[in-house]
Amino acid sequence: MTSSTALLTDRYELTMLQGALADGTADRRCVFEVFTRRLPHGRRYGVLAGTGRVLEALADFRFGAEELDWLARERVVDDATLEYLSTYRFTGSVRGYAEGEMFFPHSPVLTVEGTFAEAVLLETVVLSVLNYDSAIASAASRMTSAAIGRPVLEMGARRAHEQAAVAAARAAAVAGFAGTSNLEAGRRYGLPTIGTAAHAFTLLHDDEEAAFAAQVASSGPGTTLLVDTYDVRRGVERAVAAAGTGLGAVRLDSGDLGVLAQEVRAQLDGLGAHGTKIVVTSDLDEYAIASLAVAPVDTYGVGTSLVTGSGAPTCGMVYKLVAREGSDGRLAPVAKASTSKGSVGGRKSAARRLDGDGRAVEEVVVGGDDAAVRAWTPDADDLRALVVPLVIDGEVCPGWTGAEGVTAAAARHAASRDELPRGARRLSADEAAIPTVTLTV
Amino acid sequence: MTSSTALLTDRYELTMLQGALADGTADRRCVFEVFTRRLPHGRRYGVLAGTGRVLEALADFRFGAEELDWLARERVVDDATLEYLSTYRFTGSVRGYAEGEMFFPHSPVLTVEGTFAEAVLLETVVLSVLNYDSAIASAASRMTSAAIGRPVLEMGARRAHEQAAVAAARAAAVAGFAGTSNLEAGRRYGLPTIGTAAHAFTLLHDDEEAAFAAQVASSGPGTTLLVDTYDVRRGVERAVAAAGTGLGAVRLDSGDLGVLAQEVRAQLDGLGAHGTKIVVTSDLDEYAIASLAVAPVDTYGVGTSLVTGSGAPTCGMVYKLVAREGSDGRLAPVAKASTSKGSVGGRKSAARRLDGDGRAVEEVVVGGDDAAVRAWTPDADDLRALVVPLVIDGEVCPGWTGAEGVTAAAARHAASRDELPRGARRLSADEAAIPTVTLTV
Repeated sequence: MTSSTALLTDRYELTMLQGALADGTADRRCVFEVFTRRLPHGRRYGVLAGTGRVLEALADFRFGAEELDWLARERVVDDATLEYLSTYRFTGSVRGYAEGEMFFPHSPVLTVEGTFAEAVLLETVVLSVLNYDSAIASAASRMTSAAIGRPVLEMGARRAHEQAAVAAARAAAVAGFAGTSNLEAGRRYGLPTIGTAAHAFTLLHDDEEAAFAAQVASSGPGTTLLVDTYDVRRGVERAVAAAGTGLGAVRLDSGDLGVLAQEVRAQLDGLGAHGTKIVVTSDLDEYAIASLAVAPVDTYGVGTSLVTGSGAPTCGMVYKLVAREGSDGRLAPVAKASTSKGSVGGRKSAARRLDGDGRAVEEVVVGGDDAAVRAWTPDADDLRALVVPLVIDGEVCPGWTGAEGVTAAAARHAASRDELPRGARRLSADEAAIPTVTLTV
Repeated sequence: MTSSTALLTDRYELTMLQGALADGTADRRCVFEVFTRRLPHGRRYGVLAGTGRVLEALADFRFGAEELDWLARERVVDDATLEYLSTYRFTGSVRGYAEGEMFFPHSPVLTVEGTFAEAVLLETVVLSVLNYDSAIASAASRMTSAAIGRPVLEMGARRAHEQAAVAAARAAAVAGFAGTSNLEAGRRYGLPTIGTAAHAFTLLHDDEEAAFAAQVASSGPGTTLLVDTYDVRRGVERAVAAAGTGLGAVRLDSGDLGVLAQEVRAQLDGLGAHGTKIVVTSDLDEYAIASLAVAPVDTYGVGTSLVTGSGAPTCGMVYKLVAREGSDGRLAPVAKASTSKGSVGGRKSAARRLDGDGRAVEEVVVGGDDAAVRAWTPDADDLRALVVPLVIDGEVCPGWTGAEGVTAAAARHAASRDELPRGARRLSADEAAIPTVTLTV
């Protein structure tokens, strides 16, 4: 398998390219904008994630011999188009919100500028990455919010496509998760990895005592013992017997976790294991986490609901042509006219308006004269600019990719979430936390 | 990036391995079973997909220098475990349902047998693949059912992780989709790829006439023209003017599709374009498809709802140790005892009981004496065996992987779906179409 990302692309991008190469419009300068028309039902904000992965995918977006041979064999495009693809390299520019930033309806989270040919080809992979990663980060942010400072761990690999799982672990880290069970995510993005044992390890052994003894011998008393394979009370007893009062943690993966955590805490304390922590897993989502706020739980492990976006498994982000060079050589705004999907043409910029306490009050989308928008920077103290350069003339700007990009995105997410108005973090369904308004320049 | 799948694994699989290697239980013969406790709410059947991809991932499940170096550097496991991993190769056996087969609660869709060490490591990647792919195929099957024979095309890449999108296209093909927009899925699994143009192509041009002329010049009159960028009625007029009455199809991507399709059909017929087909897209799901049954629609394109499993973005499949060699050297059934997650121990086989008309009436799960289950074959004419060999002593059986595997799975899906009882294919929420019963041998 090649590492090229070039065929992670809808066929019509290549068919359009062929048509545009044939009639000379392929070279027209174009501005494509990524935005969403609405947040998932009831969600108050979205979290942009995946920008770093978009930039990584861009670097591998090359049509090599394997890709070109297949396209030729399948007659997907004609020879002139194959010729163009053989030297394809994105030479345009990308600007957008910093990864980890909050977004709202019509926030221009990414803007791609280049010729039609070079920019149209990126649509599918850009949207795949941003829609999935942002869906996960948006759910993850609600979970870390609900955990009121307790660590939340990502354990959802088994409930997502095996590569999506890696991206989910990364997106969770952007939104404040403290670790992941996913080894590949650890390797690729420098995330802390966690995990000790499943029920299978206990069942493998002749009895629970033997299993706990083996785990403690192998991983030390600081390990986390899973105590609900047979009977939780006996499990806790045996866990402390095996590891001593220095046992790191016990994990509960079933039952009424709130009640159970109370009982287990009392039992651990009674056994003198005051420092032993309680980790709970078992189909948690942000609501279950919130409901455990008063329980003596130290750490949450989240799986299914994280990797499926907790009810919103994708975002509705679209990649729309908003301006293009006409036959007169001038850049002109364009937009689909018909029906309810109407979009606003023209290049945009954006800022967040803050009140005197530094709380967000408005998402300001800046539109108008192309040169003015391009050059726009906030001219008032209460506006925080949101758009940063990501790719300049085909060169990826440093700091956004790899482990470094994830660290920066997590910091951005934390700062921007702190800036949300009071009430924006409650879980109940409501409108977007701040309105999106338009500023014409 | 290496092509190894070995780190698409939860850390605890390796931690358990280390513990078991240290105390000598790693060599115990084990049987792990993949099954689901329930179907998603209201679903009447599930469709198993991903088996071919599991077998492909198994072939690449090797710890190479890059993986071992990272594990050593991060001190994920000790030296003895690294030594074991460096020569890891699955030498056990895998049996399971043929890909494309229907499944129900407790259907033993995959059984992995080997030493604890070699079988436990596969848990995460096996579940990632089967849970995602089966979720997509299960949704896709409802869509092809609702389409009553009209072709359904997969166009969801932009709403899924970029690699998950490839798997989704494949799973959709298993469930009867006729094509995909995803080029990589076309290349990897030999699927027909489709797609002509987006709104961006029309907007790129000075007007719709120029865009249609360019597309017809480049792709021929048999192409599909997207007619809703400005005004549908004018769009259809211009489409037929550009391509002639031999125009392949028009695509509608917005609006009230049922009404619009009627109007467009009448307009096309009025223009003499009787053979021009109507393709509808725009956020379709199985319900929208069903509601268009009486509309003059020729082809459906489905995106978001397909790649997100139409409300059920994952399956609840688990990978459970059901039997293992004890200290006496004999294989014994095991199962987690506590709380509501109780599982049934022991190896299983399965068959589907059919009535005199060849309609499914029961899912028969066969359990009991290990040797008897292992050797079990249906002894009655009304039982169709469901379990087939997939890997024997580490060797993948031919026919299940690559393009060949997808073709076989699509055939299996079609035949098994035809066998479902009347009413099983209606979309409204209900119980599993057939009950799961146990047969002890």
